[in-house]
Amino acid sequence: MFGRSYFCGEVPESAVGEKVTLKGWVQKRRDLGGLIFIDLRDRSGIVQVVFNPDLSKEALQTAEKIRSEFVLDVVGTVVAREAGTVNENLKTGKIEIQADAVTIINEAKTPPFTISDNTDASEDVRLKYRYLDFRRPVIFETLKMRHQVTKQIRDFLDGEGFLDIETPILTKSTPEGARDYLVPSRVHPGEFYALPQSPQLFKQLLMVGGIERYYQIARCFRDEDLRADRQPEFTQIDIETSFLSQEDIMGMMEKMMTQLMREVKGVEVPAAFPRMTYDEAMSRFGSDKPDTRFGLELVDVSEIVKDSGFKVFAGAVAGGGQVKALNVKGSADKYSRKDIDALTEFTAVYGAKGLAWLKVDAEGLKGPIAKFFSAEDAQALKATLEASEGDLLLFVADKKNVVADALGALRLKLGKELGLIDNSLFHFLWVTDWPLLEYDEEEGRYYAAHHPFTMPFREDLEYLDSDPGKVRAQAYDLVLNGYELGGGSLRIFERPVQEKMFSVLGFSPEEAKEQFGFLMNAFEYGTPPHGGIALGLDRLVMLLAGSSNLRDTIAFPKTASASCLLTNAPGEVSEAQLVELNLSLNVKK
Amino acid sequence: MFGRSYFCGEVPESAVGEKVTLKGWVQKRRDLGGLIFIDLRDRSGIVQVVFNPDLSKEALQTAEKIRSEFVLDVVGTVVAREAGTVNENLKTGKIEIQADAVTIINEAKTPPFTISDNTDASEDVRLKYRYLDFRRPVIFETLKMRHQVTKQIRDFLDGEGFLDIETPILTKSTPEGARDYLVPSRVHPGEFYALPQSPQLFKQLLMVGGIERYYQIARCFRDEDLRADRQPEFTQIDIETSFLSQEDIMGMMEKMMTQLMREVKGVEVPAAFPRMTYDEAMSRFGSDKPDTRFGLELVDVSEIVKDSGFKVFAGAVAGGGQVKALNVKGSADKYSRKDIDALTEFTAVYGAKGLAWLKVDAEGLKGPIAKFFSAEDAQALKATLEASEGDLLLFVADKKNVVADALGALRLKLGKELGLIDNSLFHFLWVTDWPLLEYDEEEGRYYAAHHPFTMPFREDLEYLDSDPGKVRAQAYDLVLNGYELGGGSLRIFERPVQEKMFSVLGFSPEEAKEQFGFLMNAFEYGTPPHGGIALGLDRLVMLLAGSSNLRDTIAFPKTASASCLLTNAPGEVSEAQLVELNLSLNVKK
Repeated sequence: MFGRSYFCGEVPESAVGEKVTLKGWVQKRRDLGGLIFIDLRDRSGIVQVVFNPDLSKEALQTAEKIRSEFVLDVVGTVVAREAGTVNENLKTGKIEIQADAVTIINEAKTPPFTISDNTDASEDVRLKYRYLDFRRPVIFETLKMRHQVTKQIRDFLDGEGFLDIETPILTKSTPEGARDYLVPSRVHPGEFYALPQSPQLFKQLLMVGGIERYYQIARCFRDEDLRADRQPEFTQIDIETSFLSQEDIMGMMEKMMTQLMREVKGVEVPAAFPRMTYDEAMSRFGSDKPDTRFGLELVDVSEIVKDSGFKVFAGAVAGGGQVKALNVKGSADKYSRKDIDALTEFTAVYGAKGLAWLKVDAEGLKGPIAKFFSAEDAQALKATLEASEGDLLLFVADKKNVVADALGALRLKLGKELGLIDNSLFHFLWVTDWPLLEYDEEEGRYYAAHHPFTMPFREDLEYLDSDPGKVRAQAYDLVLNGYELGGGSLRIFERPVQEKMFSVLGFSPEEAKEQFGFLMNAFEYGTPPHGGIALGLDRLVMLLAGSSNLRDTIAFPKTASASCLLTNAPGEVSEAQLVELNLSLNVKK
Repeated sequence: MFGRSYFCGEVPESAVGEKVTLKGWVQKRRDLGGLIFIDLRDRSGIVQVVFNPDLSKEALQTAEKIRSEFVLDVVGTVVAREAGTVNENLKTGKIEIQADAVTIINEAKTPPFTISDNTDASEDVRLKYRYLDFRRPVIFETLKMRHQVTKQIRDFLDGEGFLDIETPILTKSTPEGARDYLVPSRVHPGEFYALPQSPQLFKQLLMVGGIERYYQIARCFRDEDLRADRQPEFTQIDIETSFLSQEDIMGMMEKMMTQLMREVKGVEVPAAFPRMTYDEAMSRFGSDKPDTRFGLELVDVSEIVKDSGFKVFAGAVAGGGQVKALNVKGSADKYSRKDIDALTEFTAVYGAKGLAWLKVDAEGLKGPIAKFFSAEDAQALKATLEASEGDLLLFVADKKNVVADALGALRLKLGKELGLIDNSLFHFLWVTDWPLLEYDEEEGRYYAAHHPFTMPFREDLEYLDSDPGKVRAQAYDLVLNGYELGGGSLRIFERPVQEKMFSVLGFSPEEAKEQFGFLMNAFEYGTPPHGGIALGLDRLVMLLAGSSNLRDTIAFPKTASASCLLTNAPGEVSEAQLVELNLSLNVKK
């Protein structure tokens, strides 16, 4: 224990009678009847220290100088508290320390905010004084959980024969994906390193090299503007394997996450996670990362309404779109016209041109559009939507992707508003069979939906030319409670297939060679089938910690606020440094 | 095992009779008497596969197409080899696989070098085709050892209550130390992030925050020219603790390294490492990182020779310098005058103006300078140097630091040449009591010998103004076999001491506030005493792997050779990217 007898929060009842040395910070001082009481805190918790003039006048005199956040060395005797003074809310609440001696190791100014879980400080102030924020138990416990999560994952992967291998941070830029952070090279003037957006190419080269099982808790970088749910530098659990099938990899991840949940959260989740194709997820939940902790699924009523007199519905179906509905059970009375107008505005953000609604009462469907439906259609709607008295039915009629986006977002909003989500649940889900390519209408070209190294379904290869949008990828995303934890895929490992893929993505053979030549050359020297996954550590810890703030999971997060930049902000450099890098500023600061 | 029965190198004798599936690379193919033999390799090792037309004509026909480094899926039966064909050099040498079926998963071009430990390739070629280099067992085993080293260290530190906490890669530049890599900020045009040379400031802030025990296997960066023993991005085992004494920290590291040596190398090293002050190390070994696996220590003979007729010796002592000698036991006959001339040239590189020598024969001292010494002086020299017949005595007379540098380097050279070093030994050593400051004669100012946060000895504080060179630091370096594994110190944790230190280092109060204000502010809010250490992982693995090439311990090392830049080289960027970063090139590429 190195000079202390116990951590403050861990002094046991069995220590009563022991002479102990404790070190820590002053949480609180109270003067009462000639005695001084101090709550002494370290990262483990709090213990009460009593200064009594009958025991040591000198210690009491020192204690009189003590203020919050002073650092102390306390020597004293552990005693049982008297019956009336036991504090049941404190782990050490049945004992206290009668101080013989105290040393003030360091003093402290009054902190700018209260050091407690329920602090009064804004996040800006907390981040500016992050070193004080760390002393709040909730932040310490989140960082501790992050440690436990990575330790557990490392232990699991080590047991499965994975090697932890570091890949470079100063790398060569490769196109596709987000904007790179660039690092000017002094040795190669006018050239730039890029910080990696992921170790993708390196881990594939490791597989070519026969490493077979690689992992890394890898720092990655994207030069994007700060957003609440995104940091420009982030950490991913990066995994790659050889000779394994998609099923093998998914099974291994299930085993890893199941153990993680048990060891870190004490929660049992199913050994095999539910699976859903991308198409099914979009169809039932209007999302490629559905939160399956509650129902309120999207139901297709196009067939029923396509011949109805309601032109909006009929027209949408006739135009190749669809009509889908949510049945908000028992909520007919909860939503006034005004409330529904607000929901309509909400869906408009996602492109919906309107939100139609019906309420179900004892007699049937009610609402402005009820008149458009025949008795049979009304009956069919009720049956298909499993509607009964008191239900609210909400409809969007539009192109398929607009219907999915609008109703998918509305479903989440209503799920939260109506308290349909049990926050104690952890619902893992695999989303599989992703489209390989996405069409960008503005640019008139296809993009890789995951990345250009993702293996297409063998049986879909024939469509790469004729109907690229139809080609499915051997890709899988792991979803937890509606958040994408990460995604993986089997990779292309044959040069001809990779060349074809680059060609579909619009690279000329020369461009492909220039940018990915080293990988395609490597493919010619005996490349094994390989695939892997990358999971976002920051988000995983956030979800396990029950937090909704990504920054709380990162010791020193980036923030856009100038007042809390601490040490993680850029600074100015000298003219001499710029000259050495062959650079000048376009506009002087 | 995911679709395979065993790894190739681990098919046990007990599997004889089993039908197995194996996957791997072709190490070698031999055709013999109508049969085809293939050595199938994966990361675990090799197993022999036999194709016999009596078993499967189809498999044999496929086998005829197989060449080195093809990737195969083999199904067959494990059989015991006949007595005469057992290969004792192979772990699987008592069995072989009789193939029923084989699938060529992927083909391979002829590799540019032999995939074996004793390869014929230059390092340039190996690095250009690093993915093939990984297939050489010696490289795989080194990467595996690196994994084991970090795993062992993580397990140990986790058990001691340390939290693995990530600190930022994009940070604010702080002065002192080497040149920073700079990253232009797009969001703050004209400003630059710096990549960290170490997480020093962050880990101190974590201590201010009450984390108490932090560690990180941390990537660090120095924009220095490439050298054989240095990489611009490197990894350090970064540790910081609160409330621990120097003795506590050193003891904890001894426990960590002792366990590491046992678990990873199967070597027992003493539970407590020898300790030596900086002054003693310089005096006895002429080095601040002595290799203590052999003797050949520097012996001071100044007192004996200061009044001798040899003006070089007498003059050096009179001028405040010293005369020291090495006794190269039993080597008088091994070194001719020409050999000694070569040693003289060698010491000249370290500033020595000459290398005097004497040989000891039955009658006494022999050599050109023998005549300058009286019988008593000669006797005193022999006694002090413990010289006997056949010994070679080598002398340098100069300023203290030149004597240390020249004889220290000469000692190492002779130790290697004469085979005095037992390479199976692992000698750990602590070097303590470092000078806090070093005087730079050219610049006429003091520099921090470690870094400006190192705590001086309390009792030396009074000399900070009057005699700064005399102030000792509470710093400790860990040395292994003559290499500096890393160094640590207790840190300054009081604002007045830190301000004084910055002032001695020549910072004005304004500069100190500008550059380190956030740390000094933090010190005012209850900072605990703290200290830590940083150990170089790359070098540690190199020494444990018995390698002398740092690059072999790094999966994707940097190299200055254009032909082996692979993916870790800088590249060109577009004009648009530069504009976005508010930059232009001074000289166009």
